[in-house]
Amino acid sequence: MSQPNKKKNWKNQLHEIIYEADTPAGKLFDVILLVIIIASIVLVMLESVKSIDLKYHNLLNTLEWIITVLFTVEYIARVITVKKPFKYIFSFYGIIDLLSTAPKYLSFLFAGTHALIALRALRLLRVFRILKLGRYLGASNNLVSALKSSRAKISVFLFAVIILAVILGTIMYLVEGEENGFTNIPKSVYWCIVTLTTVGFGDIAPQTPLGQLIASLVMILGYGIIAVPTGIVSAEYSNQTRNNLEPAPKKTDPKIEVNLNSQSCSNCLKSDHRDGAEYCYNCGEPLHNS
Amino acid sequence: MSQPNKKKNWKNQLHEIIYEADTPAGKLFDVILLVIIIASIVLVMLESVKSIDLKYHNLLNTLEWIITVLFTVEYIARVITVKKPFKYIFSFYGIIDLLSTAPKYLSFLFAGTHALIALRALRLLRVFRILKLGRYLGASNNLVSALKSSRAKISVFLFAVIILAVILGTIMYLVEGEENGFTNIPKSVYWCIVTLTTVGFGDIAPQTPLGQLIASLVMILGYGIIAVPTGIVSAEYSNQTRNNLEPAPKKTDPKIEVNLNSQSCSNCLKSDHRDGAEYCYNCGEPLHNS
Amino acid sequence: MSQPNKKKNWKNQLHEIIYEADTPAGKLFDVILLVIIIASIVLVMLESVKSIDLKYHNLLNTLEWIITVLFTVEYIARVITVKKPFKYIFSFYGIIDLLSTAPKYLSFLFAGTHALIALRALRLLRVFRILKLGRYLGASNNLVSALKSSRAKISVFLFAVIILAVILGTIMYLVEGEENGFTNIPKSVYWCIVTLTTVGFGDIAPQTPLGQLIASLVMILGYGIIAVPTGIVSAEYSNQTRNNLEPAPKKTDPKIEVNLNSQSCSNCLKSDHRDGAEYCYNCGEPLHNS
Amino acid sequence: MSQPNKKKNWKNQLHEIIYEADTPAGKLFDVILLVIIIASIVLVMLESVKSIDLKYHNLLNTLEWIITVLFTVEYIARVITVKKPFKYIFSFYGIIDLLSTAPKYLSFLFAGTHALIALRALRLLRVFRILKLGRYLGASNNLVSALKSSRAKISVFLFAVIILAVILGTIMYLVEGEENGFTNIPKSVYWCIVTLTTVGFGDIAPQTPLGQLIASLVMILGYGIIAVPTGIVSAEYSNQTRNNLEPAPKKTDPKIEVNLNSQSCSNCLKSDHRDGAEYCYNCGEPLHNS
Repeated sequence: MSQPNKKKNWKNQLHEIIYEADTPAGKLFDVILLVIIIASIVLVMLESVKSIDLKYHNLLNTLEWIITVLFTVEYIARVITVKKPFKYIFSFYGIIDLLSTAPKYLSFLFAGTHALIALRALRLLRVFRILKLGRYLGASNNLVSALKSSRAKISVFLFAVIILAVILGTIMYLVEGEENGFTNIPKSVYWCIVTLTTVGFGDIAPQTPLGQLIASLVMILGYGIIAVPTGIVSAEYSNQTRNNLEPAPKKTDPKIEVNLNSQSCSNCLKSDHRDGAEYCYNCGEPLHNS
Repeated sequence: MSQPNKKKNWKNQLHEIIYEADTPAGKLFDVILLVIIIASIVLVMLESVKSIDLKYHNLLNTLEWIITVLFTVEYIARVITVKKPFKYIFSFYGIIDLLSTAPKYLSFLFAGTHALIALRALRLLRVFRILKLGRYLGASNNLVSALKSSRAKISVFLFAVIILAVILGTIMYLVEGEENGFTNIPKSVYWCIVTLTTVGFGDIAPQTPLGQLIASLVMILGYGIIAVPTGIVSAEYSNQTRNNLEPAPKKTDPKIEVNLNSQSCSNCLKSDHRDGAEYCYNCGEPLHNS
Repeated sequence: MSQPNKKKNWKNQLHEIIYEADTPAGKLFDVILLVIIIASIVLVMLESVKSIDLKYHNLLNTLEWIITVLFTVEYIARVITVKKPFKYIFSFYGIIDLLSTAPKYLSFLFAGTHALIALRALRLLRVFRILKLGRYLGASNNLVSALKSSRAKISVFLFAVIILAVILGTIMYLVEGEENGFTNIPKSVYWCIVTLTTVGFGDIAPQTPLGQLIASLVMILGYGIIAVPTGIVSAEYSNQTRNNLEPAPKKTDPKIEVNLNSQSCSNCLKSDHRDGAEYCYNCGEPLHNS
Repeated sequence: MSQPNKKKNWKNQLHEIIYEADTPAGKLFDVILLVIIIASIVLVMLESVKSIDLKYHNLLNTLEWIITVLFTVEYIARVITVKKPFKYIFSFYGIIDLLSTAPKYLSFLFAGTHALIALRALRLLRVFRILKLGRYLGASNNLVSALKSSRAKISVFLFAVIILAVILGTIMYLVEGEENGFTNIPKSVYWCIVTLTTVGFGDIAPQTPLGQLIASLVMILGYGIIAVPTGIVSAEYSNQTRNNLEPAPKKTDPKIEVNLNSQSCSNCLKSDHRDGAEYCYNCGEPLHNS
């Protein structure tokens, strides 16, 4: 009974370090991981700058291998310490973790797989989890619910903007023609989106008086309709906040405020358990069975 | 009595498929139509790209003819199944449907009529009807009424922006002159609109110190006044929403909520009849007289 | 007694036509004036377009003279029919009317006075008076009072933006230097305003990595602070509207709603008299003494 | 007892002039200082314009020395009249005052120290203190508290924008490649920020159809999310204002409104003492002990 139990203990301790942030070791692990992720992104960025890559190619390559090995170790550790490894492997973070590590190994076999390193930037999303930025937004999360309740309206609005861009883009293609840079309709629609959103690169710009007149109308239109999504979010958020400020008249079922910690169940990966919880609220697996 | 009645039945069934979306056949028809409209727009876009058109000219032309024939069949079916065909023919959608189909036939007679194909993009507006996006905006339709109640104010505001652009554009023409790209007053006014709306193409840009000073003022002005339409829409929408949230004190004439379906009267083309309605609420024509 | 009285009657009738918009003749005069003002602006615009001016120089010049004569007649009529001519001559509209007419005459004496024709665009402001656009904004004029009450805050805000532009512009001048287009500090400050207001012409753009990093910060800053004036106007306007919606608790001095007409006193030029008023509310001069 | 007391009196009088704005002499000093600061910034700007510097180099240099001497005198006077000079010297304004004066002297020793003159622009911040612009914002300071309460949310939001820019920038680097101006990932990320914030310089612009498609998505995304910070500030400010408008139900501890003056303690530099205060509210040092 000693050997498997000891092994289990060892696994549990590692699980606590990797997946939880409440112990000193867990916090340290998270901070180090964050630093390595940022370092890996800076590294990929520097490699893409030719003048730097020419000078320090060997150094950058070595550092890249070190980070790849560290990521590999982390990935294997995550797979081992979880009870249901496949659940992690096929989770959102699991796939990103694999895809941001594997390309370096494959670079021996194929050229061009370097491209997948771009996926490493997605690992930055882990920052939100580590820094608990989500909670920073406030317990009531008015902003999130405001965005959710205005999502449908903004979708319809953006859909209308795209139809508008298609119609106006086709008109501009007919008015300006190929000689003024509006070489085809997709490019004209692209120009129209550039203009409606008030970005205005200027790589394509109307040259004919009629084209400039239509462009003026497009711009004033874009200026006018930029007010719509802002107005929606603003009003929805304002309502959310007001509703929270107003006292609820009768609260027969009061919420008890509890402290949640970041430990996650080694069975189902659910986190945000109550402090002092003995069993996972999702699957009933015992927690902290060290 | 059998033959005309049967013909009428046949017509009515087709009417139900084409103009209504509540039967399975009607829904299928709408979805297929939507797919064909999008395909036709993608086709016109691809045709305008020279490199693609050179390679696949015959294929694209054949597909174009297939779609034109399908649109023609649909147009004729719509005309036949409606009781008052001229009401459809001269309606907004009727004119668009004709104009987006006819040019292909006329391309035998004249060159350059290809241009009218641009109108096909307008058929995309039918998406709003098919997907019932309007209803998606919410039963209370706060956004629509907010836009309506702020329409007058935004019009006056945009009118003031145009006068401002004319005055400032003329000043910039005098300050910068032809040698710096401000070749004439219309172009200067165009530049001014580009700048006030914060689009900023950069195809024309002030070169003299005085011109850049005035441009800075124009930009800060534009930055300041962009707040006005946003503020209007935001506040109006917020008020609309609040009014809906507050309980009406006395409602002597309560609205009964009914389900509306998308069937449209074969006589006057009005849609949005109540479920179970036997007669058109607009013209009294019997519905579903199959 | 007959001759001077008749002359006075004739003057009064002309005054009513020119300064008032309630009689059919007065309305007709206003509409014709508006058309001529717009025509005169279109004319100046067309004259500035070289290709058009070369072809139709004589026609444009003739039309210009016709409009100048019409404006002169109008100006003299305005001076004659008013009791205190100097009050009109030195009023805002009086000065604009003179300055938009005189340059054409002076073009015989000096070259380059053509420039003053730009002032003609200012006559467009009369549109607001003729179309009574001000009243269109709503009796309560929430927008105007919202802008007034947020004026101080927006001024301070824009002042802070300018100081920010000076500081950041100087830094960009030091970082980018003359070789990348930031030839001097005023130009760098100009670039900074172009960027902070999200206009982004692109005639000057940072080339060094450090410059692009600072530019990124400037842009995100500009993106963040664009929210401030919008938020102010939006909230102020929202408050104004809400205050108007809420019933005033005790109104011991209720406002009686009266209809105002656009006739203006021939003595002091005040307009907006009540319907049926016999005497000017400002100076006591009898109105309509025909 | 006479000599040191007289010296102290002289110091106190100078302190009152320099640090306070309530006496006529103090107001005059502040206005003159403001004029000299603005003059010094205009001077540095003009010096950076090559054509002006070549013509008027000696004049500008002389004026620069005069301003430097004036700033030096002011700096020494500030140090002398304060009881604890080191508190001033190491305060924010003290460091800026020194850094904006010293470079001119060091220009004898080193070349390139001219750059530090840029710090002089920071002295403009004193404008806020002299003009008391802070108080202009209104006693309730709703705007400031609105910005404070929305700071956390806007930070998280901007952080999300940066992560988004890194991910999208990397994708654009892979799609467009070096031949279209996206020479490396940092530059692509810079382009992505330029686009997301709707600035759109146009120095780099996507050329491939796929790149333009992704750019369109980025722009519509940027257009959609510009609504978020605006909505936050707008709603927070609106709530702040409403809370102030509503009467507080029970105010057992009413605030007594007092007039604060701008005199500052010669010991601890705290200002905003109550009118008629005899001792500093912060350190107990007697005020006005002349």
